[in-house]
Amino acid sequence: MSTIPITDRTRIRRLPERQQTDRDQLYAALDDGFVAHVAVVRDGYPVVLPVGYGRAGDDLYLHGSTGSGIFREIADGRPIAVCITHLDGLVFARSAFDSSMNYRSVMVLGHATVLDGEEKEAALEAIVEHLIPGRWAEVRPTSKRELAATLVLRMPLAEASMKVRAKGASEEEDDGEDRSVWAGVLPILRVAGEPEASDLTPAEVAVPASVRQAAAKLEGAFAGSTF
Amino acid sequence: MSTIPITDRTRIRRLPERQQTDRDQLYAALDDGFVAHVAVVRDGYPVVLPVGYGRAGDDLYLHGSTGSGIFREIADGRPIAVCITHLDGLVFARSAFDSSMNYRSVMVLGHATVLDGEEKEAALEAIVEHLIPGRWAEVRPTSKRELAATLVLRMPLAEASMKVRAKGASEEEDDGEDRSVWAGVLPILRVAGEPEASDLTPAEVAVPASVRQAAAKLEGAFAGSTF
Repeated sequence: MSTIPITDRTRIRRLPERQQTDRDQLYAALDDGFVAHVAVVRDGYPVVLPVGYGRAGDDLYLHGSTGSGIFREIADGRPIAVCITHLDGLVFARSAFDSSMNYRSVMVLGHATVLDGEEKEAALEAIVEHLIPGRWAEVRPTSKRELAATLVLRMPLAEASMKVRAKGASEEEDDGEDRSVWAGVLPILRVAGEPEASDLTPAEVAVPASVRQAAAKLEGAFAGSTF
Repeated sequence: MSTIPITDRTRIRRLPERQQTDRDQLYAALDDGFVAHVAVVRDGYPVVLPVGYGRAGDDLYLHGSTGSGIFREIADGRPIAVCITHLDGLVFARSAFDSSMNYRSVMVLGHATVLDGEEKEAALEAIVEHLIPGRWAEVRPTSKRELAATLVLRMPLAEASMKVRAKGASEEEDDGEDRSVWAGVLPILRVAGEPEASDLTPAEVAVPASVRQAAAKLEGAFAGSTF
């Protein structure tokens, strides 16, 4: 089992037992996600924005428009923090204080570098395949003009931490709480709705494999898709 | 219709047509969410972390432990940025470039202030009722010790912006794209799983109203719950 090294900045001090250092768990949480929240400092103030991302190996890939001022600032190498969070359940304890949520949250610290040429195209493919597995082969090749309008960044997973709560409501035999109050967990799942074809998609064009695979990714399994 | 004033920092410059200024839409997006991503500057570096929140009127409430160093820093009034994002769908265009996501994202800028006394208790109730409607009345009152261990912060929605994409795949009659490639939207929904009672909850204790209401909040409607 490969572990994620803990640095002074990524050591979880509050509820340290929730720190998860198994690299495969980190990969799985990243691969389950679609949107990262990226924080950057602008004029001394923090800003945070949602960004679509991908992962390959120990690199996270971010992409954005060359027309976005904030994304250009992220691309110029200033320090960023990237957070991907999954809310997995609501935890019903017998007190407000012990009420909680089950979650997996990854934070990555560092800075991003701009990719060009073949690396850029490969990273763009990794992002598309991360978000919609199988879609890259279905769509036409990206044009030079489109590539030029896109900033693709690499951020290594060099300094990363993961915090997880994945258990039932806190309770002890001798906690004195009223057992007539229901305690437990309400799991939260993300599922796909029915695909909605665009106006210009001919009726005879079937829903493609990528849509089914995206639904499977959403649901974490191939079960459940009905189309 | 009340609108959200746009400031120099909250004006959306990239795809400005996605800026949503209807205050009721802002409230709805906030009320649909559970976890905010809060960014703060520490030693010159950005940090971002997930935080449970609530809303009442034009105030956002955040809560955390007095044992969390980063939360104490947020509580000391330094500038923060708070982002709440809903991923509503994957958008399948006929090119990677036009592939997209449907989303609602709210960013709030400013700083938080610490609440005490009755305001603190009322805000804590607002957070619990936001996350799990109906739960406050089911659990025992919060003790003085528990209250003392909890930091409850108010952040006004004074400087906020909302960005929304809520439409089909980009396509035009004359765009020259191959119509045999399926385009459209795969909606993403969040649903509740089956409630899992804790080990110490007697079998005769029924799943309470708060669990059903949390499931309804997750699904955005009372339809769909089977328990």
